[in-house]
Amino acid sequence: MTPKHLQNLLTEVANGTLNVEGALEKLRHFPTDTVRDHGAIVGRLDTHRAIRHGFPEVILAQGKKSSHLIKITKHALSHPGAVLLTRVSKKKRKKLKKRFPELKDGTPASCLYRPDSQTEPIGLVAVLCAGTADLPVAEEAVLTARLMGATVSCHFDAGVAGLHRLLAAEALLKKARVFIVVAGMEGALPSVVGGLVDRPVIAVPTSQGYGAAFGGLSALLGMLNSCAANVTVVNIDNGFGAGYVASLINRA
Amino acid sequence: MTPKHLQNLLTEVANGTLNVEGALEKLRHFPTDTVRDHGAIVGRLDTHRAIRHGFPEVILAQGKKSSHLIKITKHALSHPGAVLLTRVSKKKRKKLKKRFPELKDGTPASCLYRPDSQTEPIGLVAVLCAGTADLPVAEEAVLTARLMGATVSCHFDAGVAGLHRLLAAEALLKKARVFIVVAGMEGALPSVVGGLVDRPVIAVPTSQGYGAAFGGLSALLGMLNSCAANVTVVNIDNGFGAGYVASLINRA
Amino acid sequence: MTPKHLQNLLTEVANGTLNVEGALEKLRHFPTDTVRDHGAIVGRLDTHRAIRHGFPEVILAQGKKSSHLIKITKHALSHPGAVLLTRVSKKKRKKLKKRFPELKDGTPASCLYRPDSQTEPIGLVAVLCAGTADLPVAEEAVLTARLMGATVSCHFDAGVAGLHRLLAAEALLKKARVFIVVAGMEGALPSVVGGLVDRPVIAVPTSQGYGAAFGGLSALLGMLNSCAANVTVVNIDNGFGAGYVASLINRA
Amino acid sequence: MTPKHLQNLLTEVANGTLNVEGALEKLRHFPTDTVRDHGAIVGRLDTHRAIRHGFPEVILAQGKKSSHLIKITKHALSHPGAVLLTRVSKKKRKKLKKRFPELKDGTPASCLYRPDSQTEPIGLVAVLCAGTADLPVAEEAVLTARLMGATVSCHFDAGVAGLHRLLAAEALLKKARVFIVVAGMEGALPSVVGGLVDRPVIAVPTSQGYGAAFGGLSALLGMLNSCAANVTVVNIDNGFGAGYVASLINRA
Amino acid sequence: MTPKHLQNLLTEVANGTLNVEGALEKLRHFPTDTVRDHGAIVGRLDTHRAIRHGFPEVILAQGKKSSHLIKITKHALSHPGAVLLTRVSKKKRKKLKKRFPELKDGTPASCLYRPDSQTEPIGLVAVLCAGTADLPVAEEAVLTARLMGATVSCHFDAGVAGLHRLLAAEALLKKARVFIVVAGMEGALPSVVGGLVDRPVIAVPTSQGYGAAFGGLSALLGMLNSCAANVTVVNIDNGFGAGYVASLINRA
Amino acid sequence: MTPKHLQNLLTEVANGTLNVEGALEKLRHFPTDTVRDHGAIVGRLDTHRAIRHGFPEVILAQGKKSSHLIKITKHALSHPGAVLLTRVSKKKRKKLKKRFPELKDGTPASCLYRPDSQTEPIGLVAVLCAGTADLPVAEEAVLTARLMGATVSCHFDAGVAGLHRLLAAEALLKKARVFIVVAGMEGALPSVVGGLVDRPVIAVPTSQGYGAAFGGLSALLGMLNSCAANVTVVNIDNGFGAGYVASLINRA
Amino acid sequence: MTPKHLQNLLTEVANGTLNVEGALEKLRHFPTDTVRDHGAIVGRLDTHRAIRHGFPEVILAQGKKSSHLIKITKHALSHPGAVLLTRVSKKKRKKLKKRFPELKDGTPASCLYRPDSQTEPIGLVAVLCAGTADLPVAEEAVLTARLMGATVSCHFDAGVAGLHRLLAAEALLKKARVFIVVAGMEGALPSVVGGLVDRPVIAVPTSQGYGAAFGGLSALLGMLNSCAANVTVVNIDNGFGAGYVASLINRA
Amino acid sequence: MTPKHLQNLLTEVANGTLNVEGALEKLRHFPTDTVRDHGAIVGRLDTHRAIRHGFPEVILAQGKKSSHLIKITKHALSHPGAVLLTRVSKKKRKKLKKRFPELKDGTPASCLYRPDSQTEPIGLVAVLCAGTADLPVAEEAVLTARLMGATVSCHFDAGVAGLHRLLAAEALLKKARVFIVVAGMEGALPSVVGGLVDRPVIAVPTSQGYGAAFGGLSALLGMLNSCAANVTVVNIDNGFGAGYVASLINRA
Repeated sequence: MTPKHLQNLLTEVANGTLNVEGALEKLRHFPTDTVRDHGAIVGRLDTHRAIRHGFPEVILAQGKKSSHLIKITKHALSHPGAVLLTRVSKKKRKKLKKRFPELKDGTPASCLYRPDSQTEPIGLVAVLCAGTADLPVAEEAVLTARLMGATVSCHFDAGVAGLHRLLAAEALLKKARVFIVVAGMEGALPSVVGGLVDRPVIAVPTSQGYGAAFGGLSALLGMLNSCAANVTVVNIDNGFGAGYVASLINRA
Repeated sequence: MTPKHLQNLLTEVANGTLNVEGALEKLRHFPTDTVRDHGAIVGRLDTHRAIRHGFPEVILAQGKKSSHLIKITKHALSHPGAVLLTRVSKKKRKKLKKRFPELKDGTPASCLYRPDSQTEPIGLVAVLCAGTADLPVAEEAVLTARLMGATVSCHFDAGVAGLHRLLAAEALLKKARVFIVVAGMEGALPSVVGGLVDRPVIAVPTSQGYGAAFGGLSALLGMLNSCAANVTVVNIDNGFGAGYVASLINRA
Repeated sequence: MTPKHLQNLLTEVANGTLNVEGALEKLRHFPTDTVRDHGAIVGRLDTHRAIRHGFPEVILAQGKKSSHLIKITKHALSHPGAVLLTRVSKKKRKKLKKRFPELKDGTPASCLYRPDSQTEPIGLVAVLCAGTADLPVAEEAVLTARLMGATVSCHFDAGVAGLHRLLAAEALLKKARVFIVVAGMEGALPSVVGGLVDRPVIAVPTSQGYGAAFGGLSALLGMLNSCAANVTVVNIDNGFGAGYVASLINRA
Repeated sequence: MTPKHLQNLLTEVANGTLNVEGALEKLRHFPTDTVRDHGAIVGRLDTHRAIRHGFPEVILAQGKKSSHLIKITKHALSHPGAVLLTRVSKKKRKKLKKRFPELKDGTPASCLYRPDSQTEPIGLVAVLCAGTADLPVAEEAVLTARLMGATVSCHFDAGVAGLHRLLAAEALLKKARVFIVVAGMEGALPSVVGGLVDRPVIAVPTSQGYGAAFGGLSALLGMLNSCAANVTVVNIDNGFGAGYVASLINRA
Repeated sequence: MTPKHLQNLLTEVANGTLNVEGALEKLRHFPTDTVRDHGAIVGRLDTHRAIRHGFPEVILAQGKKSSHLIKITKHALSHPGAVLLTRVSKKKRKKLKKRFPELKDGTPASCLYRPDSQTEPIGLVAVLCAGTADLPVAEEAVLTARLMGATVSCHFDAGVAGLHRLLAAEALLKKARVFIVVAGMEGALPSVVGGLVDRPVIAVPTSQGYGAAFGGLSALLGMLNSCAANVTVVNIDNGFGAGYVASLINRA
Repeated sequence: MTPKHLQNLLTEVANGTLNVEGALEKLRHFPTDTVRDHGAIVGRLDTHRAIRHGFPEVILAQGKKSSHLIKITKHALSHPGAVLLTRVSKKKRKKLKKRFPELKDGTPASCLYRPDSQTEPIGLVAVLCAGTADLPVAEEAVLTARLMGATVSCHFDAGVAGLHRLLAAEALLKKARVFIVVAGMEGALPSVVGGLVDRPVIAVPTSQGYGAAFGGLSALLGMLNSCAANVTVVNIDNGFGAGYVASLINRA
Repeated sequence: MTPKHLQNLLTEVANGTLNVEGALEKLRHFPTDTVRDHGAIVGRLDTHRAIRHGFPEVILAQGKKSSHLIKITKHALSHPGAVLLTRVSKKKRKKLKKRFPELKDGTPASCLYRPDSQTEPIGLVAVLCAGTADLPVAEEAVLTARLMGATVSCHFDAGVAGLHRLLAAEALLKKARVFIVVAGMEGALPSVVGGLVDRPVIAVPTSQGYGAAFGGLSALLGMLNSCAANVTVVNIDNGFGAGYVASLINRA
Repeated sequence: MTPKHLQNLLTEVANGTLNVEGALEKLRHFPTDTVRDHGAIVGRLDTHRAIRHGFPEVILAQGKKSSHLIKITKHALSHPGAVLLTRVSKKKRKKLKKRFPELKDGTPASCLYRPDSQTEPIGLVAVLCAGTADLPVAEEAVLTARLMGATVSCHFDAGVAGLHRLLAAEALLKKARVFIVVAGMEGALPSVVGGLVDRPVIAVPTSQGYGAAFGGLSALLGMLNSCAANVTVVNIDNGFGAGYVASLINRA
């Protein structure tokens, strides 16, 4: 329930098209919608979050049992607005799509989602990535930013070992309001992009690489120590977080 | 053999309902019950532990071969009192339940157990967790504390990003004698709970999360550095240990 | 040389108040101003940065020899606009202030600076910190954001173990365009702030704490794993970087 | 201001020995007492904590500038009840004792404190340590527990390489309600103590040792992985936290 | 080819029962026996090792392709004396036993071996372990020490949380020439054993445990920091190395 | 497109055997050949690299989706010169060989490749490895160096525990222009080789080993700290990088 | 009090040259000699250790306050037999030598000691080190082994980058009963020595080196992963432990 | 004694200008020159190294006692050819320069040296660094390469956040035979340089930076994971090693 949904509801009450009982019913699961399994509460959807944050609570599927996940998803879909599930394994995606045909598949991002038809894309978020293997993370960022109302433009596979591939994106570098730069291995791309633009750069380290990449640690440390001052960092493989913050900055 | 069981036995000897030979037979595997495989000793059940600690030795199933596990479980079940097996894989749980139908399944906790019918629940232990994915660990804590005689009340999925979900547990926060707070990712919930209550908080980091969560390290470090002074910490995913200590404090 | 300075210069050339030779002289150290020591180049001031980024290159004093630092500072002060030196030790601060009386001291931040008189503060950046020991880092963020043209409002010593201290900042939480949240130890404050506001939160881990704080690692990991989706992170003790990005978002 | 102090104050108001204005004056810095430096707020004493937690906010001196520390200490001393400063360097201890002669020195613990004369020691907390070098941490625990109202009994230098030194403490092992076990190096003592008693053991790793002790990491990991189920752990060198929780359990 | 085998061969040459050509033929693969795959050398058996070290080169199966492993094993079996393969996966064990029926299976140790019939067991090596899950590593040590000619006596599942289980091994503690102590989790057993005996203790950390056990790191660090001075350490799960060195000390 | 290919093309244009249109067509994907999936760009082959570096862009298969990998490989094969894919899983190797029969299999290296028929092997690169288990990495180095035009000679399974196996390679140690030394576990071989020769040694740590080998970290650190001054290091298991640099040095 | 001292005492009692009271007086501090500071016990000398272990408790000076150290040393010197203090800082060494002139200085080892005049050196322990900077640790091993009755022979500065320096020690390599090999940086020397001899090698990593030596971690990991099977390891810089175990093996 | 020196000596013997006794005297300390302190050998100069490696053994001053260092330096200076001491503290540098006036000071590198007058600089080694704070390490590389006979050209302070500063070195990038690239913080410069040139790049991570730079770990990991294939890495701050290998490649 976004501020917009709440405003509509209150307007309907104000002009009498919705009576108090109807409104209360619609608000029954507000600000917390408890999810139960065999009677016990196993989840508490923060239905107030869309009011507080402008975007409904996103469901991190990883680590949740399928049965719990299905129940939580059902509750989430029962509320208006966008729905997003991240880090959904292939197997779980299959199960959930079967159960909830309204969910779209975000492949190569490991996401399922239901868009909010009411949003008009605004601004411009640029998403760059260093290699083809970073695509699942980059696409998670793209999907999130779009769901949250941003126009998004991408420039993929532009690692620093071939700078001309990055410089080919000159127009995008000039126009975007905020940049998401996704890279694994040594994670040098955000520093180079950060040096070229005067807007915020959100760096996303990925777990791509091997050996001393240590599951993304190398890229993470590189980005945290960036010599470019306009770079902030999110967790390894956290395309969602980057897309989220980028859309907040984009709509500022 | 708990102090209670031993007291009963000695009483029977004292009033003649049990002769010395019978008592010796019952004490034959005391204080150590050796478990053999092809003649060689592969386990030494600490049957004195219930006397010393008030609760029988708990069997950590992980890392034990199935054949050894079955033998050890058989010995454990042959003694009176509660029996608890933790970190039992799905496959082993299936095998053991078939072999020992008296064992109950603790799902979503990866536990098998036989309750001690003689205990009356006392006090109040509160178990809170930050997310639905933390349930298996939280339930292990619940199960352990209940087996050891505590009344337990739960409040799940109350992460700090939506504080109203935690504050909804106000009554529980006021009443419980001791708190178990389970969280993965940044592990911030114990600090917030610790700041709200004046009783001991046992923090349990979980391995939930990804990337820089490093298998629970992030949550563990966060909890060890808690700015709330009433917080102590157990190992990552160690719901059992938390439930154990909580029940000791609860019955103090 | 900011875009504004360049525009003024070109305007002067255009309307004849400055001839080409004079303009060239003023642009002699553009886009790189080399700093020499005994003839050898030891520094290359990126004088083009103010054009590219809207703020001149900032001088990280740590690790530089005093003699090099003095030379670089001299060059930096010879260009128009703000000047900022970060991580300047007490000893070096004393030396530099003596040599360059126009430099102001940013204590408790370990900074020296010369403000740019031409900027009008705009917007609102909120800087919060968890404990009094985090002040040097928080003040570095405040100083940077102000130098870059932001209105800044602070709320210090508001750790999560006493939530009412944070909630006392309700007005600030509602108004600011972007938040800088500074914390050491378990670093939980950004998650809690992130859960309360719908704007970007820049988390700054500090090296405050001891033992398993591991020089800020605990706080850093906590922030990277934040369950609040609007949080991005900068390096440990990097108040400068946080102030820099916050001012970029603030003026967006 | 502990619950007791508040009760007294309200009683005075109720029976007219204190008028409302006087009471308000006494409550002026409640629930937060802001500390200022040159007009700016640099600290927020959580004066409500004694009500919430039964013990006033403790001041972690480490990392705080001397001038800030003096101001905060002055505020703390202006409130009734115990006052405790931990991790105070030698130099700062000297300064503070000179400025506030009512502060007592907790050497070998790096603490300063003012006891609360109104508390009667109850129960029994046992503090054990493995080596003489662990004394500063052990004494911090002793001091904290005593300030919070516990009777404390010590048994120092009882490392596991000479078990008879530990077994000599048999009487204490039998009587205490809760145990604090302090050890550096391999940190094995809590496991052995935990195996001998049926009450909670709070393990405190210390930074004593060298090489692969890694500043207490070895002891910390050892304690977190204890095979004794009644062990919980606090941060490296955190004698204060252990004493705090032990006193909570002791008075339960 | 042990010194004994070489001595026999030379004796035969000396008394004419073997001519020079025959001797040379037998020494053809001395001191290196190259193993080829499709013509290329993929292994160099150090056949001189038995002379130098008193025991033939042991084959670490892990990481080797099955085809290479089979070739190397074939060569090894073609030389006289004991043969030992360690860290052989279940699948590879099956393959190799089929191909080389003379190999015996060392389960629960992941070993295959062919004993050297000529050795008479001497001395006494004690092998203790903390838990049943440590058995595969402990048995690898037992097997190695026996193959190398030591009498071995075991005492398993004697963790420090129930000291009476260890003290039950008093006779063994008094008699053995050298001790191998195997433990996972906090790895405290070697320190306690080391404190009780005046002979060398070889500590073997195992990867048993979970969470902050970090794959044996916790036990390893604990053992390296042992407060007992007679403890040395080998790699995590390296039962073989411990058995090897123990047998060297045993026969000294 | 290597410098040679480009030279040929320009020569053809110069002497009229190729008209401008034909040349343009051949240069259509120069300097970047974009790879698309459902219309979106998922890869940017750096076709200029062969000009810049003397060797075409190598494809790191790990982390790339099979569908993307097939498209990228197709593009790569459409350009003249050598093609190399590294870290190709067994499953992907099978798929790709079926689809592109011109690809050869580099087993035991996890590589696929198409050689460049025009290169004549020059110089001499020596590849040594410590154990049979290091072969896949060593062979990746061999294959890369050969593809890039070097004569390569190998000496495998020559670990430092049997020095005579290394000294047997005396001739090779004297002749080679550059050495690649591959080792896991303690990674000591490069130091010993480095001490024997006066030419550059490229050390390749492998992930072989167990326990405290920590996936190659032990070998990596050992090599970085080599007391031999002629040793440089590449990433764990990075035979490709070692072969690449060795061939650059070899042809210098 | 070593077994010898005890035997003498009992003999004197047996043949009447010492009466029971005198014997009791001499045994007053047996098996624990408590050390007090202002009445409180701050140390418990394990005077039984010489009986149990054949060598009195050694005093680790590091981390102990000077006043405590002086008291403990005084007690130690009051018992017969050898006395050894390790890791004594320069400042403390000066203080203690002044106070106890009977203590000898072990420089370059940071030790103080009083030899036991009654021991006759036996066997042969070889101590080798890789570089001159490793001398303080190597000498600590030498001193300890000599105090405990071993003949010791040294061969210093024989790093693997110049193998002829090691091979020059051929005679020593052949004769010694046990080897102590001390090395920092990559720590490769124990593997090479281990490959050359058939007796136990005790490896001592040192904190010598810089950068990725990480305070001895690199050398420690290298030694733990040694491909030579006769190598065991002690803590970083623990020359004492190595000397202790070596002398146990030497006298076996 | 370089091959050249040896050749001269043998020539003199051959043509009778030096008799055998004189030659022997000159070769007395060959191939090892032992250094003694109070009679005991504390160092073994590898005087054969110049023959084997083409450059005399370099003296790592760090960790050596001043008295030992002076003795070793005296021996080194007594042999012909270049002499280099690295990582010499300010204090030791002062002492040594006073004692050996022929030593030159390499500031800002922490080195002392005596050049070999007989070498003619050849080829071209390029040394680049990212920031002014990296100068001491970069200059150590410069000094080493020059001592070993290379022509060296530098381009300092060219970090990736201002790419035009790097591109200004175009001529150098085209000409040099080998590149040394020195950088701290995220260590991205070697990847960018590596992408621009087709010759070997030796990356030197420095300990410059703070927080998550972890003493150079971040830069080290970044360089090891470089996406440019022509990059190899040396230890943190190891300018010497980089200069050494670069000169070997340069003279190949």
